[in-house]
Amino acid sequence: MYQCDLARMDEKIRCFSQFGATGHGGITRFSLSPAALEARAEFKKRCESLGMTVVSDDMANLYATLPGSEDLPAIAMGSHLDSVRQGGNYDGVLGVLTALEAAETVVRNHIPHRHPLKVLVWTNEEGARFEPAMMSSGVITGKFSKAAMLASKDKEGQTFGEALEASGYQGDEANRFDPQKNTALFELHIEQGPVLEAEKLKIGVVEGVCGMINYEFTFRGQADHAGTTPMSYRKDALYAAALFLIKLHEELDKLDSKLVYTTGKISCHPDIHTIIPDEVKITLDARHQDPAVIDQVIAVINHLPRTFAGCSWSYEEAWARKTVQFSPQLVDLVEASTKALGYPFKRMYSGPGHDAQYLADLVPTAMIFVPSVDGHSHCEEEYTPTADCLNGANVLLNAVLMRDQEEA
Amino acid sequence: MYQCDLARMDEKIRCFSQFGATGHGGITRFSLSPAALEARAEFKKRCESLGMTVVSDDMANLYATLPGSEDLPAIAMGSHLDSVRQGGNYDGVLGVLTALEAAETVVRNHIPHRHPLKVLVWTNEEGARFEPAMMSSGVITGKFSKAAMLASKDKEGQTFGEALEASGYQGDEANRFDPQKNTALFELHIEQGPVLEAEKLKIGVVEGVCGMINYEFTFRGQADHAGTTPMSYRKDALYAAALFLIKLHEELDKLDSKLVYTTGKISCHPDIHTIIPDEVKITLDARHQDPAVIDQVIAVINHLPRTFAGCSWSYEEAWARKTVQFSPQLVDLVEASTKALGYPFKRMYSGPGHDAQYLADLVPTAMIFVPSVDGHSHCEEEYTPTADCLNGANVLLNAVLMRDQEEA
Repeated sequence: MYQCDLARMDEKIRCFSQFGATGHGGITRFSLSPAALEARAEFKKRCESLGMTVVSDDMANLYATLPGSEDLPAIAMGSHLDSVRQGGNYDGVLGVLTALEAAETVVRNHIPHRHPLKVLVWTNEEGARFEPAMMSSGVITGKFSKAAMLASKDKEGQTFGEALEASGYQGDEANRFDPQKNTALFELHIEQGPVLEAEKLKIGVVEGVCGMINYEFTFRGQADHAGTTPMSYRKDALYAAALFLIKLHEELDKLDSKLVYTTGKISCHPDIHTIIPDEVKITLDARHQDPAVIDQVIAVINHLPRTFAGCSWSYEEAWARKTVQFSPQLVDLVEASTKALGYPFKRMYSGPGHDAQYLADLVPTAMIFVPSVDGHSHCEEEYTPTADCLNGANVLLNAVLMRDQEEA
Repeated sequence: MYQCDLARMDEKIRCFSQFGATGHGGITRFSLSPAALEARAEFKKRCESLGMTVVSDDMANLYATLPGSEDLPAIAMGSHLDSVRQGGNYDGVLGVLTALEAAETVVRNHIPHRHPLKVLVWTNEEGARFEPAMMSSGVITGKFSKAAMLASKDKEGQTFGEALEASGYQGDEANRFDPQKNTALFELHIEQGPVLEAEKLKIGVVEGVCGMINYEFTFRGQADHAGTTPMSYRKDALYAAALFLIKLHEELDKLDSKLVYTTGKISCHPDIHTIIPDEVKITLDARHQDPAVIDQVIAVINHLPRTFAGCSWSYEEAWARKTVQFSPQLVDLVEASTKALGYPFKRMYSGPGHDAQYLADLVPTAMIFVPSVDGHSHCEEEYTPTADCLNGANVLLNAVLMRDQEEA
């Protein structure tokens, strides 16, 4: 099995951690910001020094290509360079840097390969500056209207289109990812959860991305004065929401143990300590790899009592996504690479969304997860030891080379 | 029994409803705002036309005096003219207008009275523009430091001191309410609750103001990604707060049925639908006339489990007030006046605070409540039929005249 280099891996992570460094261990590197452009310039420079040709498409997605020995479609790998506000040094960028390290290992060790190898950078995965997330992979795979995305504004009122034009990275639409010219896509990412670490595993062989629903519930009560309204006269929307939450937990906890659900956001009106709340809203995010379990969640919701504490409630679906299944062939390749390297692993589904889930519509796709210490992500504490990153790079490199040996 | 005049009562309410009218049935009349100054000018004009002398103290509290036939301390009545944002036409102003109507009835009907009669207006009761509430009755009764109150700023950055000076109503400190020169104080107010209406009663004979506690609870969990963190790994501060709320209701509902408690305000961090909440705060406002019941509330809180759903919690007392008992002699007078007029009534405690509760430290004090339709207050729907207002004015007038006949 081929091996990437620990010192080089470490140097790459340290170098890219500087672009947008907050001074507290993390980065703020919004898409197309000066910090993100510095990271792109460094990426381009490194690719070119390895003999790769770098082009960009009309959404500023970057494609660095290392020619292969035969006239075959490329094998692609990559992720994104942008971050959330006060994010960490691994989410996204590690998928780019392990791909770069894999390519560098191929070049420095003169590893023969038939297919061209590509390292990709997707623009604006986080959606932290310009909504929505996974914007540019979404545009080139037809999930989003390009015109709508160009009009997306940041807090200062600048549009994504303006930022794109000013970036110097807006290329030709003809350079977009072409399923005819690519035979596989691998994306390595940190797990962003605690499971691999807790189970002492080094690699997550990602079979797909969990389906999810995102609902907003509204509870309607009656606003009255805290000091004058006897308890028996009240319709307290916050109390109703609390009763609902407990009942929801009781019922959902009876479903499959892999179901995850979160009520992360709450608003309360009028939100004054001396007024009984008349309207409370809470969100529900529920995810499972099996659409049948998501259907069970919906059934649970529809069978809950229609009122709690005298308050009615209703819900709206904010959004939903179906489970994305990655290419079984490529997932098997990732597992074979992991096994051959001797790393303890498990097959798992991704809870969060990734660019790879959109690309999976165009090309056989798979993902590789490496552990997140304490499960942290989207924060400055986000951390994966370099040795674990290197394991991921090795799995990626060998999966790519295994694919290279298959019939095209 | 003497009777006030329905048409005059109605005209007064209509007239004062113009000052700060929102155009949707209510008023926004912040203390010392142009609208509030218009209301003061109208008040002053009407008092002077009745032969009253109007002075103000250093906090712009107004004192209108109708001389009595003997050299005795005065009998005072009144309330406030300011409102909350988009408040109603009754809270506060009705206590001034019924006092004015009582005085007008005395003047127009040449009703003999030994004591001087005073109609008072307290500055900035609501605290809606300059915090805190009951500011000026608080200063003259030593609850608040005057210097601190003068420095209180509105949202535009103007201080109360500046607004006071600009108002033209800042008078002499020597004019402050003097317990040597006043023998009684009556404040009429809307109930701001649903009890009188629901029980088909016309008058609340107010025995005092409920003691209360105001606590803020903080629940501490662990922020993690909604999509990657198995349920068994979670410490969800919002779920913990919901469990706490249910348990709190279970336990507090075992206490005296007159206890009212409200959790009106909630905050959630980071309040993002894809992140498990790590910190949730909720407020508790609990009120009861009997301090022993408030002590029971505190005991209930201290005996709740120390953790919910793996999250610890703590609380801080934001503020508290002891129960204020009004003068039993004056409360009996209000009841006697009500009974003589034949109005159905009940003795009750006020849940909300009122200027009278501060003045009760200086002078025998009592309050009179009239019904609030649907219990509404602090909103444009706030309403009390003029006939009910007139009943209140009659109770007030006759209680004042009964007091006038007692030995000074």
